[in-house]
Amino acid sequence: MAKGERVLIALGGNAMTGPDGTAAPDAQRHAVEAAVEPVADLVAGGVEVVLTHGNGPQVGNLLIKNQLAARVVPPVPLDWCGAQTQATIGVLLLNALQRAMAARGVERQVAVVVTRTLVDGGDPGFTDPVKPVGRYFSAREAERFRALGQNWRSFGAKGWRRVVASPEPLEILDAAAVDTLLAAGFIVVAAGGGGVPVVREEGGLRGVEAVIDKDLAAQLLARHVAATTLVIATDVEHAMAGYGTPGERPIGRTTVAQLRAYAAAGHFGGGSMGPKVEAAVRFVEAGGRRAAITSLALIGDAADGNAGTVIER
Amino acid sequence: MAKGERVLIALGGNAMTGPDGTAAPDAQRHAVEAAVEPVADLVAGGVEVVLTHGNGPQVGNLLIKNQLAARVVPPVPLDWCGAQTQATIGVLLLNALQRAMAARGVERQVAVVVTRTLVDGGDPGFTDPVKPVGRYFSAREAERFRALGQNWRSFGAKGWRRVVASPEPLEILDAAAVDTLLAAGFIVVAAGGGGVPVVREEGGLRGVEAVIDKDLAAQLLARHVAATTLVIATDVEHAMAGYGTPGERPIGRTTVAQLRAYAAAGHFGGGSMGPKVEAAVRFVEAGGRRAAITSLALIGDAADGNAGTVIER
Repeated sequence: MAKGERVLIALGGNAMTGPDGTAAPDAQRHAVEAAVEPVADLVAGGVEVVLTHGNGPQVGNLLIKNQLAARVVPPVPLDWCGAQTQATIGVLLLNALQRAMAARGVERQVAVVVTRTLVDGGDPGFTDPVKPVGRYFSAREAERFRALGQNWRSFGAKGWRRVVASPEPLEILDAAAVDTLLAAGFIVVAAGGGGVPVVREEGGLRGVEAVIDKDLAAQLLARHVAATTLVIATDVEHAMAGYGTPGERPIGRTTVAQLRAYAAAGHFGGGSMGPKVEAAVRFVEAGGRRAAITSLALIGDAADGNAGTVIER
Repeated sequence: MAKGERVLIALGGNAMTGPDGTAAPDAQRHAVEAAVEPVADLVAGGVEVVLTHGNGPQVGNLLIKNQLAARVVPPVPLDWCGAQTQATIGVLLLNALQRAMAARGVERQVAVVVTRTLVDGGDPGFTDPVKPVGRYFSAREAERFRALGQNWRSFGAKGWRRVVASPEPLEILDAAAVDTLLAAGFIVVAAGGGGVPVVREEGGLRGVEAVIDKDLAAQLLARHVAATTLVIATDVEHAMAGYGTPGERPIGRTTVAQLRAYAAAGHFGGGSMGPKVEAAVRFVEAGGRRAAITSLALIGDAADGNAGTVIER
């Protein structure tokens, strides 16, 4: 990317949990330290960076704590769990990015903005929640939480899992603070976990129990800050056509139309690649110059369009 | 206060938990909504407001969850618990303050900055931790956590409680982001819970398990942003001379020397008033015009020097 160009990088929550997937604090820290290396290279090259991040495994752990301690301390709602991860991952990113920049002789300020994202209280996700969060529990344990008003669904032999709304992100509400900090030369971390979901009601905004897809929120933020490029960094190098089938193959440089066709034909299965593809497509359709989906290690090359699944305007 | 003057208001964590003290989410929300009413009045009057907040009961709950779920998910360190509360209380403050301002026909932007506070790794608190956090546990439970390297202390019949370092805050590290947002006209929430404690080491900053007194951090931030006034809002209207004795009496308008003398003579007991008095005194000694300690409801009057325990330069 050219000096002064702006990129929004969305770091995957799974990719930041360490190899065992438990999201143990030290593993998270090491994973974040590795993740920011290519980010610091971009900064050193004069690229303007905005960062966001996922939080799935981290929220999963918080939900378990809520559940196991529910008889002793009041559980906090799902939107609070999301908020919590904005600050914990935010501080990890602050420390790690400043270290990585210092090692390159680069001095830039970094800030983490607590960010709310507006959703529609009438989003179909609220009446028919389908997004599973947290770990599997037994039917008996699930029953206890259903009695508290939560939605739980049986996943057969694996057990029961809580399902929640994952409404469309409509607006990154705290984007004005991001703008102000970017204009002053900060590298900004914002909209972590897709942002804390709030709905507009009589009198003002109110938090709601939901999770927001962080890539769909990322492309909204990318458009708001007029990034030329969106890089969605996850734990695989490419989106795969025919994912999970014997004929699966990596998708490299392609077109918006082709990606949309793959998605419509179900090539990305029910996993997390679908929303990433949707986010990339929306960004370019809305006027973004380039979107790439790739692994953490290849962020730099992908930002230049030379790695991962890439679409351009 | 005059239009355009700047006040830093530190909202007590205990004062924001609701009457039953459990820090249940709805109780926190209602308490925050009440707490911001006088803040919104100040904003409506043209006063420039910077907010910070405590987090003691909230961190207490997070520690319990960590402890009760420790066999299932990895506990997170104490500094992460503090970070978590910056975002949860931050979002409550964002929503509540925007509502309260809207009800007054005032339009101002509000932002929450995730804030780290520098402490010294050689602070005596780290070798001899004395600050109790979280709830009381049995000796057997305490033993399990001592085996993980934590410090726990017997408080006699009440049980065992974890004790941690509460090092001196040296610098509000993310104050530059606060400055930038204030200059752009934002009301800023920062340094929640005293800030996330970090130490400087070879290569950069690292989080440490500690809690920082939020009022000592608040006076640092107040000086940094050149506030004329510091208001420390808690659950009592005044600091009390002879606290806990039959002759206890409220301290109204007084002098720095008198407050220092009360503190030296042990008038504030071992509770949380000592650090509030210390913070107020430091602020005025460092050039601040006025510091007040009072209840949430009296924030406005205290900012004018007409309520609470007040000292002036």
